[in-house]
This record gives sequence, structure tokens and C-alpha cells, in this order.
Amino acid sequence: EEEEEHHQRLRIAIVGFGNYGQFLARTFVRQGHTVLAHSRSDHSAAASSIGATFFPDPRDLCECHPDVVLLATSILSAEDVMLSLPLHRLRRDTLFADVLSVKEFPKKLLLDHLPRDFDIVCTHPMFGPESARDGWAGLPFVFDKVRVGNCARAQAFLDIFAREGCRMVEMPCAEHDEHAAETQFLTHTVGRMLAMMELKETPISTKGYETLLRLVDNTCSDSFDLYNGLFMYNKNATELLNRLEWAMDSVKRKLFDGLHDVLRKQL
Amino acid sequence: EEEEEHHQRLRIAIVGFGNYGQFLARTFVRQGHTVLAHSRSDHSAAASSIGATFFPDPRDLCECHPDVVLLATSILSAEDVMLSLPLHRLRRDTLFADVLSVKEFPKKLLLDHLPRDFDIVCTHPMFGPESARDGWAGLPFVFDKVRVGNCARAQAFLDIFAREGCRMVEMPCAEHDEHAAETQFLTHTVGRMLAMMELKETPISTKGYETLLRLVDNTCSDSFDLYNGLFMYNKNATELLNRLEWAMDSVKRKLFDGLHDVLRKQL
Ligand SMILES: NC(=O)c1ccc[n+]([C@@H]2O[C@H](COP(=O)([O-])OP(=O)(O)OC[C@H]3O[C@@H](n4cnc5c(N)ncnc54)[C@H](OP(=O)(O)O)[C@@H]3O)[C@@H](O)[C@H]2O)c1
Ligand SMILES: NC(=O)c1ccc[n+]([C@@H]2O[C@H](COP(=O)([O-])OP(=O)(O)OC[C@H]3O[C@@H](n4cnc5c(N)ncnc54)[C@H](OP(=O)(O)O)[C@@H]3O)[C@@H](O)[C@H]2O)c1
Repeated sequence: EEEEEHHQRLRIAIVGFGNYGQFLARTFVRQGHTVLAHSRSDHSAAASSIGATFFPDPRDLCECHPDVVLLATSILSAEDVMLSLPLHRLRRDTLFADVLSVKEFPKKLLLDHLPRDFDIVCTHPMFGPESARDGWAGLPFVFDKVRVGNCARAQAFLDIFAREGCRMVEMPCAEHDEHAAETQFLTHTVGRMLAMMELKETPISTKGYETLLRLVDNTCSDSFDLYNGLFMYNKNATELLNRLEWAMDSVKRKLFDGLHDVLRKQL
Repeated sequence: EEEEEHHQRLRIAIVGFGNYGQFLARTFVRQGHTVLAHSRSDHSAAASSIGATFFPDPRDLCECHPDVVLLATSILSAEDVMLSLPLHRLRRDTLFADVLSVKEFPKKLLLDHLPRDFDIVCTHPMFGPESARDGWAGLPFVFDKVRVGNCARAQAFLDIFAREGCRMVEMPCAEHDEHAAETQFLTHTVGRMLAMMELKETPISTKGYETLLRLVDNTCSDSFDLYNGLFMYNKNATELLNRLEWAMDSVKRKLFDGLHDVLRKQL
């Protein structure tokens, strides 16, 4: 289509080319962007099957002078990975973006470690290979233009997601983390709890129960590192755990009070 | 249709004509059965709008000599309601059935209180007004022919559900209760816990989170009495609560261990 022909083609370096980096790369390549990749492990085969180029040495990646460096490594490794990048080999006006599932932490990380000339956009595509099985349309994409000098380039990057039909939500990183504790961390916690119980299909599963089984599958297809990162790097997560525990205690108390009412009546 | 014309029409007395009794009555009436109803509260208006006849006095109901008496009262009130029925006014060979969401308890209740001539079929249609919004097809219907002399009549009653396309599951009451603690009581407990947290829609709700919100809605559309009954009258429920609590503790422990690992590295 006409429109497709005219959008700006970007050279995007994905740092952290695991499950999620590769998932994003597929769409970037389909849209005609050039994808360069680097990761701790060697993912050359995956990269070439996707149509991206893998660089085992981050210096080679940086010397390609990408327009955008996209951090897609685990939350827990993000600081080490940032420190290992030879930033001086990049052009001074590179756009740095990230897709970490927490947002205050990478915002601070990028502001602390990047030279002042670099632009910074923090993002969270709130979907993954499971939930976006049928495309990205309608799914929320959260972003915060933390420091943007070159507006056209930042917009070209954001447009990748807009073009797929994502619901674009501009939101400060701190506000994201407040919501995300209640939505994402809670969902993962319930999924992880139910996974511990090793639930099984039964001949008499209700619809509600099947919902729980699907939740377990979707949660546990993400790495435990990801879940751990949601907890460790979102300061609202501890309070959410406390609320969940309080909720369980309250439900138990109501049940046991009911038991006592019945017993009292029988005495 | 030919087939529809030929099935046996039953006179069914529903005792406990609340949310669920009325839900069942609509389908019974549509299939051409005669529905008589009795309940603690006066539900005459609801009954006549459904095409059923309401009897405020249980003696009048029993003197109509229904083929089937279907107990659809709350689990917690089932014993009192049974004791209040003038059983001697029924025909000696009446079929007694129930739809309580637990099964060992009503089995024992009916065996203890009914004269030996009465037939007994314990059932649990594992769906309700919410989950069966689009019909009963494919949804599990559990039954146990506890004591059946008149096979044709019991079959005619079970056929009501088979004709709607339910998945008919013949299962001893004890086995039902083992499965139901893991499926139904767990689902309700998770829904009730999340309800205590008063979760709200956010601009960045993930698909998984929306699943949780729907679970809350579906769970809380049932009465707390129902949930309380699932707990109080299923001996497997306490163990399930313990497992859920253990699961929460295990997840928390894994998270806090991860926190310590990181701290130790930094020291
Ligand atoms: N999965 C999702 O649905 C989703 C959705 C939105 C955002 N995200 C975010 O995307 C990022 C990646 O997520 P993910 O699903 O791929 O799983 P993940 O477990 O969070 O991250 C895996 C990636 O981190 C790298 N990594 C892990 N430990 C490392 C270390 N010590 N040193 C260097 N690299 C390390 C892995 O490298 P190697 O593979 O090379 O070993 C891999 O590329 C995370 O920040 C996550 O929060 C994920
Ligand atoms: N809802 C479902 O999806 C579902 C599914 C399968 C099975 N069931 C079973 O169906 C039965 C009815 O369920 P429900 O959803 O209607 O809600 P419920 O709260 O379990 O039961 C309400 C019914 O119990 C009666 N009742 C409550 N307390 C009573 C008392 N002290 N004395 C006399 N009657 C009393 C009510 O009478 P009045 O209305 O006249 O006051 C009403 O008919 C339960 O045994 C439940 O386990 C429900």
C-alpha cells in the first residue's frame, strides 16, 4: 500500500534477544525496518530465520550506528547489560528505548548512564507472544518520552506500534508502576500461586476453573526472572502482596465465622 | 419436532425457588413439564411469569402429588427445609432429587429423612445463570442414582438435561466432592479474594487482568451462602484452603529469596 511505502525505515538494535526481543523483531522486520541484535547467548540462528543480523560482540553492533537501541533484556540483568555496552561507539544522537515491564527503574537507569546527547523513550508493550497471538491490535502500549530532542525519530519508533493498531497510552513511568502492580503483578502472582498447586483438568471442570487453568499456562510461559523483576523493581509490589494476603485472611475469617455461627446454633 | 412431542412430561415440584430454582424452571417449562414451586419467601410473581405455579404452603404443593421433588434451596438451609416438608402428603413412590453444589451432604440428608419407598437421585448441574448464558450445551451435569426403583421416571428427569446437550457425568457423590473442592471451591475462593481487593479497570489492563475482573463478577453474582455452603459442607475444602495458603507462602518465599540473592551480591 501507498502508506506502507512512505513510513520511515529505522535501523533498530535490539539488546537482549531472548523470547521477547525476538517476538518484537518479527514485526519490526515485517514493517521494513533493519534489525540488528545482540544478547548474552548466541541467537544467530534465530536472528537469521527472522531476517535480523546477530552481533556476538556489542562493539560491532554499536559501530553499525543504529538509529534506535532497544533494551529488551531481563529486568534483573538490565543494569549489568547497560554497563557492558560500549556507548561511545554509538552516534551521539542515538535514541535509547526499553521494553522492560517495570518503568521507573529503567528510566532512572537510562538517565543515569547515558550521555546527555542521547534521546530516551521508556515503553511497555503490555502484551506478549501468548496474549498477542492474534496480532497487536487494541492491546495497550504504554510510553513516556523521557528526553526527546529528535521528535521525528521518536515518533517513527512509536509509530511501529501505532501502525499495528496498539492502543497508545502516554503515561509517566511512576503512574505505570502503580497500575502495573495492581494489574500485571497481581495477575502473575495469582497465576504463580495456582501453578504451585499443580491443578489438573477434571471430568467436571467448570468454565471458571478452566479460566484459572489458562491463567496458569499464560503466566508460566514467561520466565521466573520476569516475574521476579516485576516484584523486585516495582516499589508498589510489596503492598500488593500484603493486600492479597489480607484478602485471603478476610475470606478465611468470613468462612470460619460462618462455621462458628452454625456450631453455636447447635450447642 | 417429532422427538420433542414424545418425551415424558413430568410434574416437578421445585423446593427453594430462588435464583437457581427459577433458572432451572425456565428450561423445565420450555420442555413442556409442569413446574410447581415452594420457597421460604413468596415468589408467586416470578413463578407466574415463568409459567410455574407457586404454593406458599408446602402441604398444598405435596398434595399435588408431583412425580419429582427437586430440592434447590441453599446448602445451609437444606436440612431445615427437608424437616419442614410434609412428606406423608406425597405419593409413596415420589422421586426426590437435589441440585446442591455439594453432594455427600444431601445424599446423606435424603437417605436419612426420606421413607424407603422414595427414589433418590443426587445431581449437580455445574453451571448457572452466568456461565450458561448461551445455553446448557456442553456443560457438565453430574449425577448419582443413589436409590432408584422406577428407572423410567429417573431417566425422564435426567433426560431434561441430556436433551439440552449437557455433558452427562455419572459419578459417586464422594468423588464429586473431591473434584469440586479443587475446581469450584478454589475458583470461588480466588474470586472472593480478588473481590475483597476491590480491583478497578485501569487504562493499561492486560488480558490476564481482565480475566480476573470477569472471575470476580461471575463469583460474586452467586450468594455468599452458596460459597459458605461449598466450604462448610465439603470436607475437602479445608485442605484446599491450606494448599492455597501454602502456595501463596511458597511464591512469597521464592520472591524474597531472590531479593536476598541480589542484596548478598551487592554486599
Ligand atoms: N514476555 C513478555 O510478554 C513481555 C512483555 C512486555 C515486556 N517484556 C519485557 O521484555 C524483556 C525480556 O523479556 P523475556 O520475556 O524475553 O524474558 P526475560 O527472562 O525477562 O529476559 C530474557 C532476556 O534477558 C537476557 N538475560 C537474562 N539474564 C541475563 C544476564 N545475566 N546477562 C545478560 N542478559 C541476560 C536473556 O539473554 P539470553 O537469551 O541471550 O541468554 C534474554 O535476552 C523483559 O524486560 C520483560 O520485562 C516482556
Ligand atoms: N447459582 C448457581 O449457579 C448454582 C449452580 C448449581 C447448583 N446451585 C445450587 O442451587 C441451590 C440454590 O442456589 P441459589 O443460587 O439460588 O442461591 P442460594 O443462596 O444457595 O440459595 C437460595 C435459596 O435458598 C433459600 N433459602 C436460603 N436460606 C433459607 C432458609 N433459612 N430457609 C429456607 N430457605 C432458605 C432461598 O429461599 P427464598 O428465596 O425463598 O428466600 C432461595 O430459594 C444451592 O444449593 C446451590 O448450591 C446453584
